[in-house]
Amino acid sequence: MLYLVRMDVNIPADMPAEELARLQAAEREYSQSLQLDGRFKHLWRVAGEYANYSVFEVSGNDELHELLSGLPMFRYITAHVTPLATHPNAVQR
Amino acid sequence: MLYLVRMDVNIPADMPAEELARLQAAEREYSQSLQLDGRFKHLWRVAGEYANYSVFEVSGNDELHELLSGLPMFRYITAHVTPLATHPNAVQR
Amino acid sequence: MLYLVRMDVNIPADMPAEELARLQAAEREYSQSLQLDGRFKHLWRVAGEYANYSVFEVSGNDELHELLSGLPMFRYITAHVTPLATHPNAVQR
Amino acid sequence: MLYLVRMDVNIPADMPAEELARLQAAEREYSQSLQLDGRFKHLWRVAGEYANYSVFEVSGNDELHELLSGLPMFRYITAHVTPLATHPNAVQR
Amino acid sequence: MLYLVRMDVNIPADMPAEELARLQAAEREYSQSLQLDGRFKHLWRVAGEYANYSVFEVSGNDELHELLSGLPMFRYITAHVTPLATHPNAVQR
Amino acid sequence: MLYLVRMDVNIPADMPAEELARLQAAEREYSQSLQLDGRFKHLWRVAGEYANYSVFEVSGNDELHELLSGLPMFRYITAHVTPLATHPNAVQR
Amino acid sequence: MLYLVRMDVNIPADMPAEELARLQAAEREYSQSLQLDGRFKHLWRVAGEYANYSVFEVSGNDELHELLSGLPMFRYITAHVTPLATHPNAVQR
Amino acid sequence: MLYLVRMDVNIPADMPAEELARLQAAEREYSQSLQLDGRFKHLWRVAGEYANYSVFEVSGNDELHELLSGLPMFRYITAHVTPLATHPNAVQR
Amino acid sequence: MLYLVRMDVNIPADMPAEELARLQAAEREYSQSLQLDGRFKHLWRVAGEYANYSVFEVSGNDELHELLSGLPMFRYITAHVTPLATHPNAVQR
Amino acid sequence: MLYLVRMDVNIPADMPAEELARLQAAEREYSQSLQLDGRFKHLWRVAGEYANYSVFEVSGNDELHELLSGLPMFRYITAHVTPLATHPNAVQR
Repeated sequence: MLYLVRMDVNIPADMPAEELARLQAAEREYSQSLQLDGRFKHLWRVAGEYANYSVFEVSGNDELHELLSGLPMFRYITAHVTPLATHPNAVQR
Repeated sequence: MLYLVRMDVNIPADMPAEELARLQAAEREYSQSLQLDGRFKHLWRVAGEYANYSVFEVSGNDELHELLSGLPMFRYITAHVTPLATHPNAVQR
Repeated sequence: MLYLVRMDVNIPADMPAEELARLQAAEREYSQSLQLDGRFKHLWRVAGEYANYSVFEVSGNDELHELLSGLPMFRYITAHVTPLATHPNAVQR
Repeated sequence: MLYLVRMDVNIPADMPAEELARLQAAEREYSQSLQLDGRFKHLWRVAGEYANYSVFEVSGNDELHELLSGLPMFRYITAHVTPLATHPNAVQR
Repeated sequence: MLYLVRMDVNIPADMPAEELARLQAAEREYSQSLQLDGRFKHLWRVAGEYANYSVFEVSGNDELHELLSGLPMFRYITAHVTPLATHPNAVQR
Repeated sequence: MLYLVRMDVNIPADMPAEELARLQAAEREYSQSLQLDGRFKHLWRVAGEYANYSVFEVSGNDELHELLSGLPMFRYITAHVTPLATHPNAVQR
Repeated sequence: MLYLVRMDVNIPADMPAEELARLQAAEREYSQSLQLDGRFKHLWRVAGEYANYSVFEVSGNDELHELLSGLPMFRYITAHVTPLATHPNAVQR
Repeated sequence: MLYLVRMDVNIPADMPAEELARLQAAEREYSQSLQLDGRFKHLWRVAGEYANYSVFEVSGNDELHELLSGLPMFRYITAHVTPLATHPNAVQR
Repeated sequence: MLYLVRMDVNIPADMPAEELARLQAAEREYSQSLQLDGRFKHLWRVAGEYANYSVFEVSGNDELHELLSGLPMFRYITAHVTPLATHPNAVQR
Repeated sequence: MLYLVRMDVNIPADMPAEELARLQAAEREYSQSLQLDGRFKHLWRVAGEYANYSVFEVSGNDELHELLSGLPMFRYITAHVTPLATHPNAVQR
């Protein structure tokens, strides 16, 4: 089952550079392991913004929430989820 | 180059059923030919709404506008385009 | 899997009274059959508005869209879906 | 009488981890005692967000406000209340 | 129990003058009978707009919805309800 | 002349408890003296929120602003004023 | 007492040209008589829009509503009123 | 003096094709004559929408409004004007 | 040329009282000198808010920006500018 | 390919003056080098606001994001990108 998620990232202006670097490295590792196991299908940067659109393929709402709330940056992310259904005109999938 | 497009469809309440059927058939054919030639990469229904999220891979803004404005239902669609860039954490693509 | 759906109903002002009555009867029958089979778990009126909040328990996004788009009044409904996950503090369910 | 409440939680970024843990434990206990006495009927996580939708069954607006303003996290919660009425098409209740 | 309701009225531009007059007379009569029986406690015009703020004192959400949906102009009204609770600093009531 | 005012209160998270208590006591005293002299006609809590709807009866815009800007918590309040006029269907007043 | 009013005008697309001309002439006459008697102090066009910002000096909310609801185009106007108070830094008035 | 203007075009769904063609031809001619005389400096399509961003160089607010309200499609356009000033970091101009 | 400007003032909660007093005195002096030289034509308080509506008469967008960005409180002000044009129904001016 | 970008700048109130000066100098240098190499085609101040509208001509979404995210002030900027396409009525370009 697919979900489109927009995430906007807001890092507190006073976070020390090292902490930010550590956080970004953890985020990268977490994100890539989910991409590699196939559940995090697409990850795109919104051009010009510290934001992304992501597509997840998971078993349902609970697994989606588990993955998202496990993001190392979750506390600094405003996420909005759109559940996706099959489109009758879609050819490939 | 990728673009995410949200489209909300608003058919006038007084459109005759035949005209609507013709319009939907034309939309389907147009949409599928673009999917088959690879430029219309993803087409997802927004669950519960007469709306979709679509991803296009085209040469740029002009080609994107040409494809979207050629949609048979374009007149009845409210579209919003988000230009997508490569995300530094993206593994696959 | 649970989904919360807000639906706002907008009937065209010029719909004949009989057609409206027929539509409302069909809506009632459809809605009640889904309630009886257990997939339409809650149906509440938003006090003061021609709107409702509904909770569905279905197998996923596709089944949800199928149920919602099958509503006889679907064409006149603006729906917004919120996917629900288990809350860690929830006792009963 | 039923009310639907959406709550968005915003914990200050500089709250010490212990204080947060104490706050979350208090919230859990408070929330569960209300669920057990039957007034806090449903508690659902909004998938992907630090937010919930809750349904309360109380004697009226005053009792609802008393329960909500008693939440240990009330100061960090943005709540929006929707009063619910019986829907004429509702079968079960 | 008190509720504050904002109502915005939108009469279709093509409603014949007689029908509008009949509707307004019915609205007036309905509104005044509720004011006289004490449930419709305040009715104020929003200065400059075809809108009002109203305060109702009723037994709860169901009675409120029954009164509002019984308004002769209900079909042309966009209503938004705010449930009111006792304020700890309120002297009179 | 009547005005409806919605006030949302935002106390900084780091205000010391004593200062908050002093502020709330001052607010209470100020508010009650205005209620007793008849200019602050209604004070209602918005159920579930740290917010209120208030009705003032004053000589005009200047007196209203003077009263509101004199609130001890004014600096922490987001207020929105709606000027009210007599409604032609209003019975009592 | 002063009020700032923004008015957006929406004429139905199917209004016959003569009716529109008659309406505009009536609006002009009404507006100018209020300007001449001093109550309609300023009338400015919002550049690029069929909208205006107006300043009225009247005895209060009731007189303001009477003037605005008397506009020949009132039915086609969306108005929003801001009550103005004396600014402590204002020199002239 | 420069102004940025966003224009969204909404043609009534029931406008006959010939009338629309006539309107579009008039719009084209008007727009191009302003571009040729140098006052309509830029005209860009918003990708995917029946909308444009335009830049005008005119003597001031009055001339801008005169040009915009003279657009053959003005009645069907929602325009929003942003006045532009010289940016201290701008090199060319 | 006229411009209407709405300004909302947000002073950081932790600004020392002396600094605020100095800032307010500077703002007052600056504002009054512009009022006296005729470019700052109107200054009105929004009743109930720490906000104002102001009207400026200047040579154009650049001079307007120069005046506004010179406000001692500019850093704490959210301003929105509406360019005003002559209204065809305006009598006086 | 052209993009219109609106940028709103929010500098933390507690940034030391020297750091701000250094940041602004870096921003100026970066911005001007992009203007000189032709990719940053227009840079306009939004009159009255700490904001700008900019037009970039780049090879696509990735280059645009690279330029924007390289802005020294990027962390303090809220940007919104609109992809622009050729307008059929545009004469010059």
